[in-house]
Amino acid sequence: MKLKLITLALAGVALTGSAGKFTEYVNPFIGTGAVNGGLSGNNYPGATVPFGMIQLSPDTHNAPDWFNASGYNYNDSTIYGFSHTRLSGTGACDLIDILFFPSLTDRTSSPFSHAKENARPGYYSVKLDGEDILAELTSGRRAAMHRYTYPQGADAKLLVDMDHSAQKGSWDRKIINSQIRIVNDHTIEGYRVITGWAKMRRIYFVAEFNHPILNADLYDGNSSHKGTTTINGRQLKGWLDFGKLNSPLIAKVGISGVSYENARENLASEAKGFDFDAMASAADAAWDKELGKIEVEGGTPDEREIFYTALYHTMIQPNLFSDVNGEYVGADYAVKQLPKGEEQYTTFSLWDTYRAAHPLYTILNDEVTADFVNSMLRHYDDYGYLPIWHLWGQDNYCMIGNHAIPVVVDAVLKGVEGIDPQRALAAVVGSSENPHPGSPFDIYEELGYMPEDKQSQSVSITMEDSFDDWCVAQLAEKLGDKETAEKFYKRAGYYANLYNPETSFFQGRNSDGSWLEPFDPVKHGANGGYPYTEGNAWHYFWYVPQNVGALVEYCGGKKGMEKKLDTFFTLEQTSGHKNDNISGEIGQYAHGNEPSHHVAYLYNDCDAPAKAQDMIHRIKNEMYTTDHSGYAGNDDCGEMSSWYVFSAMGFYPVNPASGEYYIGTPTFDRCIIHLPDGKDFTIVANKEKKADAHRVKDVRLDNRKINDWKLSHSDLMKGGKLEFNLK
Amino acid sequence: MKLKLITLALAGVALTGSAGKFTEYVNPFIGTGAVNGGLSGNNYPGATVPFGMIQLSPDTHNAPDWFNASGYNYNDSTIYGFSHTRLSGTGACDLIDILFFPSLTDRTSSPFSHAKENARPGYYSVKLDGEDILAELTSGRRAAMHRYTYPQGADAKLLVDMDHSAQKGSWDRKIINSQIRIVNDHTIEGYRVITGWAKMRRIYFVAEFNHPILNADLYDGNSSHKGTTTINGRQLKGWLDFGKLNSPLIAKVGISGVSYENARENLASEAKGFDFDAMASAADAAWDKELGKIEVEGGTPDEREIFYTALYHTMIQPNLFSDVNGEYVGADYAVKQLPKGEEQYTTFSLWDTYRAAHPLYTILNDEVTADFVNSMLRHYDDYGYLPIWHLWGQDNYCMIGNHAIPVVVDAVLKGVEGIDPQRALAAVVGSSENPHPGSPFDIYEELGYMPEDKQSQSVSITMEDSFDDWCVAQLAEKLGDKETAEKFYKRAGYYANLYNPETSFFQGRNSDGSWLEPFDPVKHGANGGYPYTEGNAWHYFWYVPQNVGALVEYCGGKKGMEKKLDTFFTLEQTSGHKNDNISGEIGQYAHGNEPSHHVAYLYNDCDAPAKAQDMIHRIKNEMYTTDHSGYAGNDDCGEMSSWYVFSAMGFYPVNPASGEYYIGTPTFDRCIIHLPDGKDFTIVANKEKKADAHRVKDVRLDNRKINDWKLSHSDLMKGGKLEFNLK
Repeated sequence: MKLKLITLALAGVALTGSAGKFTEYVNPFIGTGAVNGGLSGNNYPGATVPFGMIQLSPDTHNAPDWFNASGYNYNDSTIYGFSHTRLSGTGACDLIDILFFPSLTDRTSSPFSHAKENARPGYYSVKLDGEDILAELTSGRRAAMHRYTYPQGADAKLLVDMDHSAQKGSWDRKIINSQIRIVNDHTIEGYRVITGWAKMRRIYFVAEFNHPILNADLYDGNSSHKGTTTINGRQLKGWLDFGKLNSPLIAKVGISGVSYENARENLASEAKGFDFDAMASAADAAWDKELGKIEVEGGTPDEREIFYTALYHTMIQPNLFSDVNGEYVGADYAVKQLPKGEEQYTTFSLWDTYRAAHPLYTILNDEVTADFVNSMLRHYDDYGYLPIWHLWGQDNYCMIGNHAIPVVVDAVLKGVEGIDPQRALAAVVGSSENPHPGSPFDIYEELGYMPEDKQSQSVSITMEDSFDDWCVAQLAEKLGDKETAEKFYKRAGYYANLYNPETSFFQGRNSDGSWLEPFDPVKHGANGGYPYTEGNAWHYFWYVPQNVGALVEYCGGKKGMEKKLDTFFTLEQTSGHKNDNISGEIGQYAHGNEPSHHVAYLYNDCDAPAKAQDMIHRIKNEMYTTDHSGYAGNDDCGEMSSWYVFSAMGFYPVNPASGEYYIGTPTFDRCIIHLPDGKDFTIVANKEKKADAHRVKDVRLDNRKINDWKLSHSDLMKGGKLEFNLK
Repeated sequence: MKLKLITLALAGVALTGSAGKFTEYVNPFIGTGAVNGGLSGNNYPGATVPFGMIQLSPDTHNAPDWFNASGYNYNDSTIYGFSHTRLSGTGACDLIDILFFPSLTDRTSSPFSHAKENARPGYYSVKLDGEDILAELTSGRRAAMHRYTYPQGADAKLLVDMDHSAQKGSWDRKIINSQIRIVNDHTIEGYRVITGWAKMRRIYFVAEFNHPILNADLYDGNSSHKGTTTINGRQLKGWLDFGKLNSPLIAKVGISGVSYENARENLASEAKGFDFDAMASAADAAWDKELGKIEVEGGTPDEREIFYTALYHTMIQPNLFSDVNGEYVGADYAVKQLPKGEEQYTTFSLWDTYRAAHPLYTILNDEVTADFVNSMLRHYDDYGYLPIWHLWGQDNYCMIGNHAIPVVVDAVLKGVEGIDPQRALAAVVGSSENPHPGSPFDIYEELGYMPEDKQSQSVSITMEDSFDDWCVAQLAEKLGDKETAEKFYKRAGYYANLYNPETSFFQGRNSDGSWLEPFDPVKHGANGGYPYTEGNAWHYFWYVPQNVGALVEYCGGKKGMEKKLDTFFTLEQTSGHKNDNISGEIGQYAHGNEPSHHVAYLYNDCDAPAKAQDMIHRIKNEMYTTDHSGYAGNDDCGEMSSWYVFSAMGFYPVNPASGEYYIGTPTFDRCIIHLPDGKDFTIVANKEKKADAHRVKDVRLDNRKINDWKLSHSDLMKGGKLEFNLK
């Protein structure tokens, strides 16, 4: 990134503010595009702040979809403008709202090159080569700024496009109605109502300019409503003319999911003047504060760049959803008022992020963790069960399980303040008892498993639901509700009902109890029509985090399990269709998708920690890069990044609601976690003098040797020192 | 209606409360279904209160559409249940929300017969013959009650259907998301988000029962989520079991367009207990109060039934749209808070209702008129121009012109209290200057007319816009804004630019000034693709209400105009496709559609008032009936009814913003209008002793003879006596 900065400076591209101590390590281009046709993280390079509402970034597709879900692909060479919202690292695309594009003519796109592009946390710039316009973006939490430097003496124009969105064909996406209005010669407003992956969204914006609008032409499709100050329709665009400018055009934009009024209030509270540099500096400072919660020393420059970029990617979602006045749109589409001091969040890609991202937040962001959990509990109140994939305040049911449950339970059991434990228990129990799409609990309780003839993806759902059940039981037990604990501990064992001793795999059964035949352990399922979800029987064999001992038994002991793990990490795909999400392969292991993520650590349970360390070391080195691919697969709202952050620190939450981490192997010589209460937890790696030292000779917590390869969350949060000797 | 009541009493069908002095004249079955394949009013027979939010009525179609837009057709013999919202008299269908159907089994419809059906204002009952269940409905403003009497000893069930709606295929209608939740054993709630004729609606309900729910099964399409207390999806139904009941099941329901919370508050404020009879009595009293504002004596029983049913039909819309706490959904889909004491209304079918319905409200309902107008002004604030057809708070752009303008201007000029004149002027000017769909004012002002090559329906739009322009000018002049008055008086004359002296018709022109050829004065247009809207050159010749003198001139004087009117009322259709909305024909005159409505009165302008009186008398007798057809065409939200109410009183607002009525011929011996301020205006008809006396020998206002066949609104509102001598 430093090199990039120098290159850009030479290229004459403006830079603003100074990169912070930690933000300077971040390379927002990581994960933004495949290298040589492989996969990338599906990240975006634009401007955002930690957990912010706005993601202001270039769109290199006019209608992004599955393979460019963030709106940007590093391999593209055209920019269509800068829109204010998007997802990071997802497979599916949505949001992509309110596009601005600066022009001198009626041009609506421009070629660009990476040589004249620059990004750091909270700031992005690019030279639009088509007409030599410098575009700079920065953002606050609910407001953002654009700064466009037009060529001297040229007539400055700005396209405001309310029709730009993710691909209209996907997810029944359609603009229901929209508006652009010219409020006065410095202000425009607009909104749209749009269907899509989030079933129905309203988004309002207000934009204020530092130069007067001399003329505005508004269009609905091809029909111009000349001279109108307000246009309503489904294909709205506006062209604003500012004439010849003696200084850059600055647009400050506030958004809201609730109303114009709230968008105005959001803007007013975050951007009083037109000081672009001040907003960029504030964004940098906000990021530096968050990133600086983990301070590393040693490692290679690439490792530091990967680490801090990963840490950055873990915090560009979940996203703030409530306005500065505490209003937000509930899961029932009604406007709600938050209790004072609380904030509502969305973008919970829970099937991914319950594994490592949310546990990471419990270490670094306890306040925001309470907001995340309370946001989920409010969703429960409105919707009848906790969210599965929470997008713009709504459930899109993407993936399986009910993995808000481990997030809620983990936070309560870790003692995160500001969450009502009884309310949490009611929500996790209700979400586990009320049948809902993908979760026919009536059938599950009757049979002791999900039968494939009644609920597809039945093995994966049974395995994952069993874990969720264990989480419910844990919380019930902790709160003294024995009956509930007993019921859910029983359900937590349902995975066993799908274990077939003859094959030593978990296999699909129908409701009559029969096994699904034929059985091929390497054949993948996708998202329906087969008992395994985005994986195969090999992947799902390892998913009993609540009782790894059972796996040891199934394998006939630790040696047997070690052997099965060895096979897992070496077995080639010999038959069956492979799922699209499988990438980053090591044998059957696929780091590009979440079901594999904890598996390397399971060597610890076979008394083979060195194999765990070797594999973790290999994955860190092979599956994470500083190039624009960045990741071996979708970053999935920071989950892939969270794996790295944990694994680089030297431990990982194999069971993400146990309050316990499996010890792996640290990347950096020294890593200090600055805990929320002011204490530090320091991880030290004393390495033998060889480049590749990663095998753990011994590991000590505050000078007491750790023998079980475990670190408890409570020990971590006390502060102290974890010292590795590596060979 | 009295006869009907007797029949029903004999049939053993329950009746509740006692009909009021005026409500007893109303027959809600008028206009509910064609007779012998003709047209009907498209009205509904169910329960509603004056200008209420709820229209609780039987649906005899499972997915009503164009030809049964109110959900009910008298010719049908099956009832699918009772839903809470609908339109009266429209061509297009929408709303039709939240269907309840009582059953003993899994039956979802029932045969019924009119012999066991009963309706009066605010009350409807029917025996569902399929399982011998008596269903009774009544309503308040924002809450309603159902009373279901199941056979003794039978297991009572109730279907709650959130998937029932107007035809899904029409207007891109689709349920975006919906919910049913069992709150406790006496309460359920639900909402849906649905697209359609109103682009996107949210509707929430809460229902409380007087008996406990013993079991609830919720379904999404065919998939049951057994045992769940909350279901979300797009095809939701719930079956509630109440077991054997010792008294009727009563459901009280509150609705809201904003939230569950507001639906609960609406319900609590209007229905404290489960006293169905009390709510029915209150509805009856509310109607009696409204209907009693006009008291008639004489006339035949049929004439009184037609008159009071027509008056009833004028007041079942516009519909209340704000909740009891003052919240409502704005045209920008955001939730708004009303100023204290104000209410928001919707269902403004303005192309129809600006002609006579709104003028009628200015006489009878000044308070609600202020709310109507302020509702439109708030729409202007949110949308940029006044509504064209205002449905569920949104503009569906149905029909042409901007006829909120005459409504707003008329109310201000008549001195209706509670409207800010300057705000009104800004709105009518803004709506006339901001180009918008159907109103490309940039082109209109450039050419002095709408050219057909750029804006279809150009003759009709030019004629109607010219009138709207005259209204703007009137208000501007009144408020001392001379410049605006001058501009709009000029535009008010644009109709003349389409007058072709060679044919003596208003004809379409292209933007190059050329006339559209070939020209056929009887050929109809529909809603695009031809210069005339739902009519032909004959219909639109008469549309210069702001300057009838010009028509006299075009006709070469009064005799020429009389002759042209004679031709109009006799000329047969000889060529060209006839528009579907043409019905109730007398020559070219078509009482079934609005453009004809004022034409009979124009004989007054030719010194041929006797011909006006003959024709008005004929139309009243031929086009209005007591059978279920009722009207010669769609009632169009009470416009067809308003024509009758005015014409039966003996005058009509040919120019609906002039404050002046044309005198026709009264129906009743005596008609007393009880004015809002307590004064009475009495119309007396002294008839010669013959059955058909309707020609006016003379007419006197407070004993002063009227020579110009005009009555001013201000004279009317002073109270006094209008006395006709009829021969």
